[in-house]
Amino acid sequence: MYGKTASELLTKVRTEKPLVHHITNYVTVNDCANITLCTGASPVMAHAVEEVSEMVSYAGALVLNIGTLSPGQIKSMLVAGRRANELEIPVILDPVGAGATKLRTESTLYLLSELDISVLKGNAGEIGVLAGSKGKVRGVDSESIDGDAADIAVECAENFETIVVMSGATDIVTDGNRTLTVENGHEMMGKLSGTGCMAASVLGSFAGVSEDYMLSSASALAAFGLAGEKAGMCANGPYSFRTALFDQLYSLKPVELKVDAKVKEYNGV
Amino acid sequence: MYGKTASELLTKVRTEKPLVHHITNYVTVNDCANITLCTGASPVMAHAVEEVSEMVSYAGALVLNIGTLSPGQIKSMLVAGRRANELEIPVILDPVGAGATKLRTESTLYLLSELDISVLKGNAGEIGVLAGSKGKVRGVDSESIDGDAADIAVECAENFETIVVMSGATDIVTDGNRTLTVENGHEMMGKLSGTGCMAASVLGSFAGVSEDYMLSSASALAAFGLAGEKAGMCANGPYSFRTALFDQLYSLKPVELKVDAKVKEYNGV
Amino acid sequence: MYGKTASELLTKVRTEKPLVHHITNYVTVNDCANITLCTGASPVMAHAVEEVSEMVSYAGALVLNIGTLSPGQIKSMLVAGRRANELEIPVILDPVGAGATKLRTESTLYLLSELDISVLKGNAGEIGVLAGSKGKVRGVDSESIDGDAADIAVECAENFETIVVMSGATDIVTDGNRTLTVENGHEMMGKLSGTGCMAASVLGSFAGVSEDYMLSSASALAAFGLAGEKAGMCANGPYSFRTALFDQLYSLKPVELKVDAKVKEYNGV
Repeated sequence: MYGKTASELLTKVRTEKPLVHHITNYVTVNDCANITLCTGASPVMAHAVEEVSEMVSYAGALVLNIGTLSPGQIKSMLVAGRRANELEIPVILDPVGAGATKLRTESTLYLLSELDISVLKGNAGEIGVLAGSKGKVRGVDSESIDGDAADIAVECAENFETIVVMSGATDIVTDGNRTLTVENGHEMMGKLSGTGCMAASVLGSFAGVSEDYMLSSASALAAFGLAGEKAGMCANGPYSFRTALFDQLYSLKPVELKVDAKVKEYNGV
Repeated sequence: MYGKTASELLTKVRTEKPLVHHITNYVTVNDCANITLCTGASPVMAHAVEEVSEMVSYAGALVLNIGTLSPGQIKSMLVAGRRANELEIPVILDPVGAGATKLRTESTLYLLSELDISVLKGNAGEIGVLAGSKGKVRGVDSESIDGDAADIAVECAENFETIVVMSGATDIVTDGNRTLTVENGHEMMGKLSGTGCMAASVLGSFAGVSEDYMLSSASALAAFGLAGEKAGMCANGPYSFRTALFDQLYSLKPVELKVDAKVKEYNGV
Repeated sequence: MYGKTASELLTKVRTEKPLVHHITNYVTVNDCANITLCTGASPVMAHAVEEVSEMVSYAGALVLNIGTLSPGQIKSMLVAGRRANELEIPVILDPVGAGATKLRTESTLYLLSELDISVLKGNAGEIGVLAGSKGKVRGVDSESIDGDAADIAVECAENFETIVVMSGATDIVTDGNRTLTVENGHEMMGKLSGTGCMAASVLGSFAGVSEDYMLSSASALAAFGLAGEKAGMCANGPYSFRTALFDQLYSLKPVELKVDAKVKEYNGV
């Protein structure tokens, strides 16, 4: 059933080509632009406070990523996010490195309090920190979490009344009541900078053609992960994997996703 | 004849290695640096208002790209552009997303009014907007134009007294009086983020060794497009295409360009 | 002997995975993140003055690169560098384009005077300029130096009481008293934007697991250069070389480095 939804949403992304407005870091921004294109959506990157409100008004989704945060950027995120909220455009927040510095943790909490975030996507450490000091983050990597991953994701979703995506070998998607797991993916995705950021772009692309952000998120992760699985078959290392990942997502057929999406309801261990 | 000119200019780029100073967006800046190197020229990226005037004084060309615009960046573009004008260094302007927001449209018009722009390069939507609301832009993509592409390019060239390059399946190069078309290229170039920005870097590289910016522009587009054609033969998707595009431009022989450049005079439909 | 040290340090990088904090340019920042990962260390990029002091306190090394310099960035470098000095975390400085503009030259001299720089890495032109106008820089490329490369590197090391790495076909590593040369590498590394910046990231990764920055630097250059040699065997041009370079560094076995590192004492011509 989830495979069918995922395949239908992928088709919809490619037909409707939603504009995905990113306010994002300068490390992986090119990857985000290209993965959005390879998904079938249309990326735009714009951060100036003078234009974000206008730009987002044409968007199907807004992706906020704090990977190379600055105070000016937070202000632009706030302006764009408020406009997106007014227009009921979904907002994806990727709190890169939350927990690593006060600026990142506090900025994330500020955005979560001021904006209606549709999907909060982070690694286990980041989500753990946001759920109340249950995670440890080193730089932009998850170091450890203190407790069961799914429980922490659920708690985070309840606290912030949002859908939480916790990325990992098994991705967890939860709105606090209902939890899905996605098991598509390839270990090489952890060897490459930016796969987390790219995942947020794919989440935005799918959210741009759906109103059920639980299903759109699980579908997006399945599509991205499945492209990773196929890429892993022909890679010699992280960079040939990268080339294949983009090519495979671009070439991914909805029918493949229907068959091979590994999305399941989760009912505890 | 145009093939011969193109091949001679490519040889000249590789011999003289002009410095191409970019003030550009952070999305595709790495692509711009590398495509400039693969063309045979030498890229430098510098945006601080404290240094752009000095940096551009050593350059063979200045490339201005508003893809991730901010007011501070416009100021630097103005300072660098004025110095380039004083020194008769050609200035290429790529008005990425003009028409998508007021900031982009107005900044482009401001730069066009304050600077002597040698080549204005945009997609059909951007050039249409600048020619007087005859184009529609969504994010950074051309959505539609209202009228004949060549007519709009000519009108834009007349209005701003500059050479206009309108990119597309067929590229149009016009100074308002004379119009050339370039038919080299590959559809995969539209599936990859940054090919428009890269084209501007190649335009800058060729302008840096020429005084006839009509011919240098048509030659640059033919070289870049021909590399794309060759890359398209061995690509599995946008990213393997990307790898091949850079490799093929690097390896492109002047004699190939002489034979395979598809540049023609245009005399109406 | 140097091969043995290099192989041991590579193993140590992969075991300890030091966090390498970069304050760097936006042109090659993605390359720096990925090459750090491929070396085995963990990259983080953070430039906001509000967080750099906190971020660097968790780092094994700090890499400062002025490739797209701005006054605000220099301030952040100063704050991060001072904290790194307090905590005895090694600081690598890559003065990209020093000599090309006053801003770059003066900012470099300012950082050298205010901070305790562990390793100053530049091309011959940059090091020559810093050693007292003995180099010429054009954009970010070394154009020429006036004198013997090793002598100039030694002079620069003496003047600034730091280890100097002068990159080139033969890399020179010197603390002013003792000089090593590293002959690993491939000419294709000069055809690709960012290999100098990447080298600084690898220097930082190795410095993060060592206290002898002469040996860590020579080892890092040998590892990076050897990956380049292996990549050169299967490349068709700069971009397929790039893919292979990252893959090869990721796959590089310590034992290969032990056998094939080309590090030697240098005792004059």
